[in-house]
Amino acid sequence: MTLALYHFGPVANSLTPLLCLLEKGLQFENRVLDSRKWEHHDPAFRAINPEGMVPVLLHDGRVVRESTAINEYLEDVFPEPPLRPADPWLRAEMRVLTKYVDEYFCPALTVIGAHGATPFASKIDKAEMAARLAMMPNEEVRRKWATVSESGYSDQELADARRRLGNCIARLEDMLTDGGPWLLGDEYSLADIKWYSMAPALPRVLPERCNPQATPAIAGWLDRMAARPAVQALPAYAPQR
Amino acid sequence: MTLALYHFGPVANSLTPLLCLLEKGLQFENRVLDSRKWEHHDPAFRAINPEGMVPVLLHDGRVVRESTAINEYLEDVFPEPPLRPADPWLRAEMRVLTKYVDEYFCPALTVIGAHGATPFASKIDKAEMAARLAMMPNEEVRRKWATVSESGYSDQELADARRRLGNCIARLEDMLTDGGPWLLGDEYSLADIKWYSMAPALPRVLPERCNPQATPAIAGWLDRMAARPAVQALPAYAPQR
Repeated sequence: MTLALYHFGPVANSLTPLLCLLEKGLQFENRVLDSRKWEHHDPAFRAINPEGMVPVLLHDGRVVRESTAINEYLEDVFPEPPLRPADPWLRAEMRVLTKYVDEYFCPALTVIGAHGATPFASKIDKAEMAARLAMMPNEEVRRKWATVSESGYSDQELADARRRLGNCIARLEDMLTDGGPWLLGDEYSLADIKWYSMAPALPRVLPERCNPQATPAIAGWLDRMAARPAVQALPAYAPQR
Repeated sequence: MTLALYHFGPVANSLTPLLCLLEKGLQFENRVLDSRKWEHHDPAFRAINPEGMVPVLLHDGRVVRESTAINEYLEDVFPEPPLRPADPWLRAEMRVLTKYVDEYFCPALTVIGAHGATPFASKIDKAEMAARLAMMPNEEVRRKWATVSESGYSDQELADARRRLGNCIARLEDMLTDGGPWLLGDEYSLADIKWYSMAPALPRVLPERCNPQATPAIAGWLDRMAARPAVQALPAYAPQR
C-alpha cells in the first residue's frame, strides 16, 4: 500500500487531508508543491491531475481529488480512528458543515487571500503572466489570477467577502456556544478539520469581529485544536523556502 | 418509522431527495410547499427548519437538511438498493460530481432561474415585498430576492452564469462520451440523481450549446434517465396549483 499527498503545505484546502492523515496516523509520501513557482500547473503534475489543482491523494496508483472527498475516502478506506460519527444524523450534520465551508466560507476567504497576492502577482512581467495564465487548465482559477495580476478585486467585492466571513464567524460562534467542545458536540470529526482549514484566518482578516472577547467560543475551540498532537505536527509539512 | 419530505416539487434541489426516495421505494409523507406563497418562510415551516429552506427530510422527528447530505443520509440508513458505489474510489468520484453541482452548476443556474422570476417578483407591491424580505432568514436568499424584485441581474452577471453553464455542458458531455451509460460508468448513482436535478434545464437555457446534435451523449443520458420508473413517477409530486 502506498499513499502520497500532493499539497501546498498546512493551509486552506491542503490542510484538510493533511490533518486527516495525521489524525489517523497514516504513513504517506509528502509531496509539497511550491505555488509561487506554479508547480501545480507544470506538465509533470498535470499528468497526475489534469485540472492542475491540489490537494490530490495518490493511493495505490489511483488519484483522489478534492479535499472534502479525499477525507471521506480516507474514512471509507481507513476507518480507524473514526473521524465520521457513527450516528447517521450526526454524520449528515457533519456533511452540512463541510459543505458550508466549501460553498460559502472558502469562496469568501479566497477573495481576500487572492487579493492579498496582488502585490506579488502584479510585479510579474506581463508576458510571463500571460504565459502562466495560458498554462492554467481551470477557467475559474485562470480568471481569478487574471483579476489578481491586473487590478485585484474591487472594494465592493472585498466588502462582500468580509460580510460573508462575518456570517461564518457568527455561525461558528453560535454552534460552539450552544454545544462544543467540538463542532458536533462530543465527537471530534471531519467538520472540525474542514473548518480549521479556514478558521485560523478569521482573527487576522476580521480582528474586530473575531477575538477572545467578541467570540470566546471560537477562541476556546482554536486553542483546543492547536493543542491536538496532529495539529502540532503540521508545521513540519510546510514548504521549505 | 416515519419519513416526511418537505419540498417544492420535482425540480432542482427538491428533486434530489425526492428521486432518491422513489429509487429506493421508500414510503414517505409528501409535503409540498408553495414557493409562490412563500410557505417556506412561514413560522410553521421555520419551526422545522429555521433557515426557511427546502428540501428537508423529517425522519422519526429528526430534521435532515441540504439535498446532498439528505441523499447520503438515506444511503446510510436505507442502503438498499445501493445508490452509492461499493468501490471507495468510485464513491469519491461520485462525491466530486455531487459537489460540483452544489458549488458550480447550481449557483450558475440559480442566477438564470431567479432572473426568470423578475416579472413575477417585480409585480409584487413594494411594501409587501419589503415584508417578505424581512421574513427571509437566510441573508443570501434575501439578497437574491432583493435583486430579483428590483432590477434582476445585470447583463454581465447573466452572461457569466451562461458561460459557467457552458462549462457544465462540456463536462457532462465529456464524462458521458468517455464512459456511460451513467455518470460513473456502469453504476447508476447519487451523481446521476444530483446532475438530473439541474441538467434538464440546459437544453432550454442554452439550446444552441445543448441539443441532440451538439451533445449527443447528454441527449442519450437524459433519455435513459427519463425512462427510469422513479423518474416517471416524479410528476405526481408536483404542486397542485
